Amino acid sequence: MPQANSPLRVVIVGAGFGGLAAARSLARANVDVTLIDQRNHHLFQPLLYQVATAGLSPADIAAPIRSILRRQKNARVLLDTVVGVDTVARRVILASRRTIGFDRLIVATGARHSYFGRDEWEAHAPGIKSIDDATTVRRKVLLALERAETETDPLRRQALLTFVIVGGGPTGVEMAGAVAELARRSVSQDFRSITPHCSRVLLVEGGPRLLASFPEALSKKARTAIEALGVTVHTGARVTAITDSYIDVGDLRVPAHTVVWAAGVRASPAAAWLGVEPDVAGRVIVGPDLSVPGHVGIYVVGDTASFTDPSGRTLPGIAPVAKQQGRHVGRQIALGRTSPFRYRDFGNLATIGRHRAVIDFGWLRMSGIPAWFVWTTAHIFFLAGFRNRLLVGANWLWNYLTFERGARLITGGDAHLHGEKR
Amino acid sequence: MPQANSPLRVVIVGAGFGGLAAARSLARANVDVTLIDQRNHHLFQPLLYQVATAGLSPADIAAPIRSILRRQKNARVLLDTVVGVDTVARRVILASRRTIGFDRLIVATGARHSYFGRDEWEAHAPGIKSIDDATTVRRKVLLALERAETETDPLRRQALLTFVIVGGGPTGVEMAGAVAELARRSVSQDFRSITPHCSRVLLVEGGPRLLASFPEALSKKARTAIEALGVTVHTGARVTAITDSYIDVGDLRVPAHTVVWAAGVRASPAAAWLGVEPDVAGRVIVGPDLSVPGHVGIYVVGDTASFTDPSGRTLPGIAPVAKQQGRHVGRQIALGRTSPFRYRDFGNLATIGRHRAVIDFGWLRMSGIPAWFVWTTAHIFFLAGFRNRLLVGANWLWNYLTFERGARLITGGDAHLHGEKR
Repeated sequence: MPQANSPLRVVIVGAGFGGLAAARSLARANVDVTLIDQRNHHLFQPLLYQVATAGLSPADIAAPIRSILRRQKNARVLLDTVVGVDTVARRVILASRRTIGFDRLIVATGARHSYFGRDEWEAHAPGIKSIDDATTVRRKVLLALERAETETDPLRRQALLTFVIVGGGPTGVEMAGAVAELARRSVSQDFRSITPHCSRVLLVEGGPRLLASFPEALSKKARTAIEALGVTVHTGARVTAITDSYIDVGDLRVPAHTVVWAAGVRASPAAAWLGVEPDVAGRVIVGPDLSVPGHVGIYVVGDTASFTDPSGRTLPGIAPVAKQQGRHVGRQIALGRTSPFRYRDFGNLATIGRHRAVIDFGWLRMSGIPAWFVWTTAHIFFLAGFRNRLLVGANWLWNYLTFERGARLITGGDAHLHGEKR
Repeated sequence: MPQANSPLRVVIVGAGFGGLAAARSLARANVDVTLIDQRNHHLFQPLLYQVATAGLSPADIAAPIRSILRRQKNARVLLDTVVGVDTVARRVILASRRTIGFDRLIVATGARHSYFGRDEWEAHAPGIKSIDDATTVRRKVLLALERAETETDPLRRQALLTFVIVGGGPTGVEMAGAVAELARRSVSQDFRSITPHCSRVLLVEGGPRLLASFPEALSKKARTAIEALGVTVHTGARVTAITDSYIDVGDLRVPAHTVVWAAGVRASPAAAWLGVEPDVAGRVIVGPDLSVPGHVGIYVVGDTASFTDPSGRTLPGIAPVAKQQGRHVGRQIALGRTSPFRYRDFGNLATIGRHRAVIDFGWLRMSGIPAWFVWTTAHIFFLAGFRNRLLVGANWLWNYLTFERGARLITGGDAHLHGEKR
């Protein structure tokens, strides 16, 4: 228990948008902040698809957590994995077997992709949530092109050149656009046997339209734009099987070696740590002030939280929600009083290929090239750290002018083809 | 066998400096070039230590081989691993079981690090020859700092903060300087428990002085400069044991968790492929025109070749030698005639830390900050591809102005600490 005037011990688990915003908003409070993450870097997840499609390097969209919090003297950073919470003794339990006591706990541990109970699909259809996920997808896509170049059997070549993205939300649409450009345009001059028109990109969505969270008019524009890039869109289509050589979409069997998963996510196991009943997506149901009912001083924010606003809407798992929630909890702790969270919705953005986007600010709806410029500016502006803004800006300008994708490296894992069976 | 006027089939194995120079010098010849590499990228190896110490990103110093040769229509690129050469049927044997026939063969397969028969050291003392090597070293160095931050035992903490570089050639000196800066300066503000002065960097060299290939006066200057960065130099010191927790240097046992190998290299197994007797470093002994005695139309260049010039000097395994040899063989094939190779020695460069270097151009010897500017300019100039020049330039300027090392990401392998024993 703290002394009367000793600073409150605030433990934050997860250095994504939510956790980091919470830490920063406590900078001037009389507290000791411990920020725990299993990675040493904060990741700008909305641009991960650019790493997966070789447009950006990992370091362009990630920054060491320590650097970000360098000047915040009341914060320390711990690289460790949380495995549980002792809510009675009020301690966080780490994989290293150490425990860390807290007076206030903020859980901001995000979400992983979910395969709707078909976990065996993960091996064939990786999602993109971490740097390692993204470089895995990058390796898969680039190796498929390399294999196609030397494959003489036309059917196998077709399967190698078929790229399927499952999930028609912003990530799936952005990924499909970028893969289409990578496979059909940027590399068109680099290969001798395959031509860009050999490749097919399929975008599969279970619901009736792409970008379900956008107004219907923008969904239509997005679909037109992405089809213009050569992407075939299947809406209302259910995936029933994924193997390493094909994917079944409804009654259709599509031979494909590269499938990317952008369909579903499931929250981190925070509900189990806290011993509370999760919602259907595994999230912790939080009260109006983002605290966990029955647990004084324990808050959950971001993708792990299930927050329903006064109008009855459950907030989506997107960066602005996480950021605002993290900041709100930090301020409550700093001020020592409770207040209800209110989400300020600044709108929705999604990019389609190299220079198209759709934007829904509520008061403003845009699509096409002007929307792309807004999207680009917004993303560069929100990137953590000036250096990254500078380099990502230079990279994008370069990609835009030249169609070049500069980070086309096959590294890690099975980086060379060796003699493995194809 | 080719028809009278059909183009010669030239197979080049390895897309390092030698192989790439050979391919490029054949751009206007009436030949079909096949360039085979087990990686999809050409690597600017002299800057790998910058990736290993988080100053640059992998994509900054590597470019896809296909992009480099995009406009050379007589060249195709094959991602595959060569496992042998049938010198009678004149075919290269690939790991994929395919074979590629050749009229002329250029072997440019480089070298790997060598542990002087102590291969068990590799697990504890990785070298840096590939992107994956460099990111492995980066992960080791950064994880050691993270572990030290939470280690309470002072002896263990000291071992975690001791970094040993074995080998006092240019790579070892550059690596030691960069590690010293990373461990002692750039991260000094980022940690709360460890201070920069806790860390020790040792540079161990078996010979009597650092940079043995430079004039003695420059060796001394390099030693002074690197000691000023906080590196402890041991010359005339033999390594007798390396484990995961200590290294024995002569009679001295140094507890250290991070050891980097920059001491010895061994050529690729090309001699075995060709059925010839290698020299002591595993290299293929080549004649004055870089061809392999007894094998018409088969050449070896770069680190895999043992070439003795008319003065009796065996050329070192450095990028300029490989480049000039590759170009020379390409020209001989293009012109259809034999000529002796002559190495034009433009001098030696090595950098020490953030803004010191030593340069020996023969007619000009420099050290200190002016030498660093020459070194930087030369390296940026020789980087493959304009984009990389631009980005590396921006990165260096940024690092130079801010002491920031932007690529400080722990990814791949054991990227989180998990609960593993320390």
